[in-house]
Amino acid sequence: MLRIAIGQMEVIAGRPDLNSRKMLDMIAEARSKNAQMVIFPEMAVPGYLIGDIWEQQAFLRDCENLGRKIVKASDGICVLFGNVGVDWNKTGDNGRVRKYNAFFIAKNGRLCGGDNFPYPFRIKMLNSSYRAFDETRHFYSLRRLAEEIGSGLEEMLSPVDLVIDGDEIRLGCILGEDVWSEDHAVKPVSLINWKDQVDLFVNISTSPYTRGKNNKRHRIFSRQVSQTGVPLIYVDNVGIQNNGKTVYTFDGCSTVYNRSGEVIDSCPAFVEELKIVKMEQDGIFRSQPALGELDDGGIDSIYKSLHYGIGKFLQAAGIEKVVIGVSGGIDSAVSACLYNKILEPERLLLVNMPSIYSSKTTKDLSARLAHNLGCLYTIMPIQEVFEYTVRQIGETPIQNSKDGSQFNLSVSSFVQENIQARDRSARVLAGTAAAFGGGFTCNANKSEMTVGYGTLYGDLAGFLAALADLWKHQVYDLAVFLNECIYCREVIPREIIDLVPSAELSFEQDVDQGKGDPLVYPYHDYLFRAFMEQWDRSTPEEILTWYAAGCLEEKIGCRPGLVKKLFPEPDVFIEDLEKWWKLYLGMGVAKRIQTPPVLTVSRRAYGFDHREAQNPVYFTENYLKLKKKINGFV
Amino acid sequence: MLRIAIGQMEVIAGRPDLNSRKMLDMIAEARSKNAQMVIFPEMAVPGYLIGDIWEQQAFLRDCENLGRKIVKASDGICVLFGNVGVDWNKTGDNGRVRKYNAFFIAKNGRLCGGDNFPYPFRIKMLNSSYRAFDETRHFYSLRRLAEEIGSGLEEMLSPVDLVIDGDEIRLGCILGEDVWSEDHAVKPVSLINWKDQVDLFVNISTSPYTRGKNNKRHRIFSRQVSQTGVPLIYVDNVGIQNNGKTVYTFDGCSTVYNRSGEVIDSCPAFVEELKIVKMEQDGIFRSQPALGELDDGGIDSIYKSLHYGIGKFLQAAGIEKVVIGVSGGIDSAVSACLYNKILEPERLLLVNMPSIYSSKTTKDLSARLAHNLGCLYTIMPIQEVFEYTVRQIGETPIQNSKDGSQFNLSVSSFVQENIQARDRSARVLAGTAAAFGGGFTCNANKSEMTVGYGTLYGDLAGFLAALADLWKHQVYDLAVFLNECIYCREVIPREIIDLVPSAELSFEQDVDQGKGDPLVYPYHDYLFRAFMEQWDRSTPEEILTWYAAGCLEEKIGCRPGLVKKLFPEPDVFIEDLEKWWKLYLGMGVAKRIQTPPVLTVSRRAYGFDHREAQNPVYFTENYLKLKKKINGFV
Repeated sequence: MLRIAIGQMEVIAGRPDLNSRKMLDMIAEARSKNAQMVIFPEMAVPGYLIGDIWEQQAFLRDCENLGRKIVKASDGICVLFGNVGVDWNKTGDNGRVRKYNAFFIAKNGRLCGGDNFPYPFRIKMLNSSYRAFDETRHFYSLRRLAEEIGSGLEEMLSPVDLVIDGDEIRLGCILGEDVWSEDHAVKPVSLINWKDQVDLFVNISTSPYTRGKNNKRHRIFSRQVSQTGVPLIYVDNVGIQNNGKTVYTFDGCSTVYNRSGEVIDSCPAFVEELKIVKMEQDGIFRSQPALGELDDGGIDSIYKSLHYGIGKFLQAAGIEKVVIGVSGGIDSAVSACLYNKILEPERLLLVNMPSIYSSKTTKDLSARLAHNLGCLYTIMPIQEVFEYTVRQIGETPIQNSKDGSQFNLSVSSFVQENIQARDRSARVLAGTAAAFGGGFTCNANKSEMTVGYGTLYGDLAGFLAALADLWKHQVYDLAVFLNECIYCREVIPREIIDLVPSAELSFEQDVDQGKGDPLVYPYHDYLFRAFMEQWDRSTPEEILTWYAAGCLEEKIGCRPGLVKKLFPEPDVFIEDLEKWWKLYLGMGVAKRIQTPPVLTVSRRAYGFDHREAQNPVYFTENYLKLKKKINGFV
Repeated sequence: MLRIAIGQMEVIAGRPDLNSRKMLDMIAEARSKNAQMVIFPEMAVPGYLIGDIWEQQAFLRDCENLGRKIVKASDGICVLFGNVGVDWNKTGDNGRVRKYNAFFIAKNGRLCGGDNFPYPFRIKMLNSSYRAFDETRHFYSLRRLAEEIGSGLEEMLSPVDLVIDGDEIRLGCILGEDVWSEDHAVKPVSLINWKDQVDLFVNISTSPYTRGKNNKRHRIFSRQVSQTGVPLIYVDNVGIQNNGKTVYTFDGCSTVYNRSGEVIDSCPAFVEELKIVKMEQDGIFRSQPALGELDDGGIDSIYKSLHYGIGKFLQAAGIEKVVIGVSGGIDSAVSACLYNKILEPERLLLVNMPSIYSSKTTKDLSARLAHNLGCLYTIMPIQEVFEYTVRQIGETPIQNSKDGSQFNLSVSSFVQENIQARDRSARVLAGTAAAFGGGFTCNANKSEMTVGYGTLYGDLAGFLAALADLWKHQVYDLAVFLNECIYCREVIPREIIDLVPSAELSFEQDVDQGKGDPLVYPYHDYLFRAFMEQWDRSTPEEILTWYAAGCLEEKIGCRPGLVKKLFPEPDVFIEDLEKWWKLYLGMGVAKRIQTPPVLTVSRRAYGFDHREAQNPVYFTENYLKLKKKINGFV
């Protein structure tokens, strides 16, 4: 029997000192629990998302030194961990010192991965360059190394032989992505086990939370495990890491798969834990009854991730107090409820900032929300400065230095709308947050972010956009979930959920008359999701093709019958489609360049997970042909 | 003799329709000039920096279709061009349809690259994943393909045989990076020519302007060419392309290298041109006398690039009018002079926004600058709204919803400084620009950007940060250059150049008393450059090591004797070093996430060219040891 400790630790990216100290503590704890092996995640020492800090040689030396301390601490226990592996005598593709994403196996103060291998550690084969991952920028892959030294991949992937308390065990070492190889021509798992010699696969990962990902992971892993008949332990970290624009939570959910592919045991989501599991001589884990699949596809999982992510973000950024502008609308209400579950009530300040366009309805709802939450509340109207600004801009003469002539600018109602939005955020909220000693939030959702429906330096400002990876309908779902399952009372007044969404920046957006946003969320949410999240991104060409074929609602997932109801004629449909496509790829991009970090929950969030350029908007030639054909029928 | 046309075209990223139309026009022009061959840049059809639009299948189909039109147009002329090559039956590493960065050779309506090759086009071997490049995210490399089909690289890189007007010519086809292979284990140029069969190398590229890059290119290319003894034609595009955060200019400078490595001819920087060159039977270009090296290391080259980049950016974004906040300081003055060379005077509006902290000196200088430029000018004071805001935040009671108690916030002088900065940009400039029908600029320089010395939604706001890749001393150089060489008169008053740099946000920053920024640019510019631009990024560990060894000034390039003068004792030096390092990796990162696009001139600009995460600031263990040792000596 082998007693294995799973070290589901919180990794702090860029702090190898703290991470290695944590690992030393966990090694001591594992030893005290008589574990013979302890496993830590991929890149446990440096952390994973650290940008170009990989180009600092001083940082690399530190990671090596701290890694050596871990190795030294492996007296009487086998320690498996991820770290950067450096070859100071060779260069990578960018000409800098060569780095590998490496798997270290230490025992009795020595490294064991170097038998029949050029380094005393094993190397990741499939470096990730999708989503927010950048591994090909920094790391040399096993594939490239094999090519360089003229060695076969099977040979380089051979299992690591260990003798633990007299028993021999052959370890198949897998790093992150290497087990998610469905899209790759080469399958590391099969290659490692080509001689049928592996006793146990260990997959160390640093894999972020994504809604529904664990369901998919279980499916893929179970299949691979049952095909090889070799048990697998998957170890992931918890914590948050970011790429600047995109913030990821890491849920851990480290899992033990029995040789038949059953999930035998797993660590809880978003919790640091040292879990002991026992593998019998025959390679079977018996200690637990088989668990069902971990379902992380629902709104409860999204809530959990947001709650964890916001809390960790505040902690990492050192923000102890938060200001939220509340309008009486759904987004700011949900935002307030989320932060209220993290901060003490006297550290959360809600600010309502009415103008003459703000209805009594929404002003009252804002006050009720604050009252329900029991946090701090204040009202700071913007009307006076708004009027002053319109006057100042419209009445200050502009001088022509050449001929001495003068003229005045005129301030249109559209310009006035944006002046209000900026006055709220850049003047009142930013100043108030600074005086309060904290930060202020951005409450924008993904539907707004998609088409830039929001004002730069206005409602698109803030230190974190925690809802910006949720479509508007998911914000509503979250509101209901918060009332029903988290607060277990109507903390968000029902009227806020029922009210028509509106920016209230002009009388044209009067909620009491049922007027509001130009976005029809039950349709546009799904249209935008097709642009943004579909595997092969949809463009107007696909949308119009589906529209013409009568299968659009089915393809994008919105309510049947809705399209015909919203757009009685094709030309109205086309006009709407083109309007939003232009905003998505035009003003939307320009704004997103300057928006706050987005807390990720979907499989594609704005920011680093969605690379984009400020380029002219394009309609394909096939789209233009199809449009001509359809318009010809009108 | 072979008459070759170099098609140094402007490529518009994401607009294959416009690019292919331009190519058809240039093919017609080349034919009319009796050229037998015309060469276009890498990715001439789709453009290069288009983010994840590579995941839109409709876009790929369009590029293919438009590519076919180019092929059809090759009647009687050989057309070489870059486009995306798609294999719809295979997938890439990310599971999406497989794409190659491809080199197409068309003649008489047919593609010629497919002899002994799996596709009718040639494929890039070294996909770039450094700087702002992302090729490994989207494209499958020749290396990977060779591995997949079990073919040798030499075989797959064999030259393309063409018969042009009865003469046989063997073409070595190189894509971008493939000739910059100094850092790579594999050298495509040698591989292509391993049998000594190549008559002419053609390198199609899309390579952005970087200060000093052409000098380096000439060195590398000349060496490679003289080693093989085969002439080389390098074709690059002009225009601008961006990755959202980072805007690149493309200077073209397409060049003909004779077999000895001499530069025989080259197209001008930043100009679209169809240039005809003649290669004799013996592979020698005789038509021109050999040219000297093109030196692009100086401030004139930076000016040229900024002038071109700003102009193209305005054009692409559809911005026809610009507002610039002028403080009487150097950055806004240089900014105004740059835009004034692009826009008509009545489309450029300078706005001075004084508070009680603004000196008469800087107010007068602002007015003189506008007068010298002859553009529009106005004065919009911020004092009243600034005072209102301080009062509103300080005097509006904050209510505790739980116990009904109230309190007031206090507005510190630091908070007041930022309120002023935001009032200027987010209230006055943004509103004025909208009313004027244009955008407003961000005038921040690279020194400020490095440590976040600037206010978010304040002076760090704007549609483009055109100076944000210039260190403060380069801004001064540019000011002098503008006066002396571009305007040929003192358009920037000498006093602006001589004045101490100051934000004028409090009486502590009174320029008339010689008080100003906490940054000592003659030292900090060079310290920050070592953090940011040195090949292996410097950290406090290297800086302190050099300081202790007495070689810091030499290592970072600042004036000898300066360090001792500024920091009489090591503890003062260390305190300063740690302060800026913390800002660089702390608040600086948080701010840069939300700053405008940066116009690139250096080899590393902020944005996509410098990946960074909002992580805790780190000092290596070696640094801490060294510090302890040095402090022990004090």
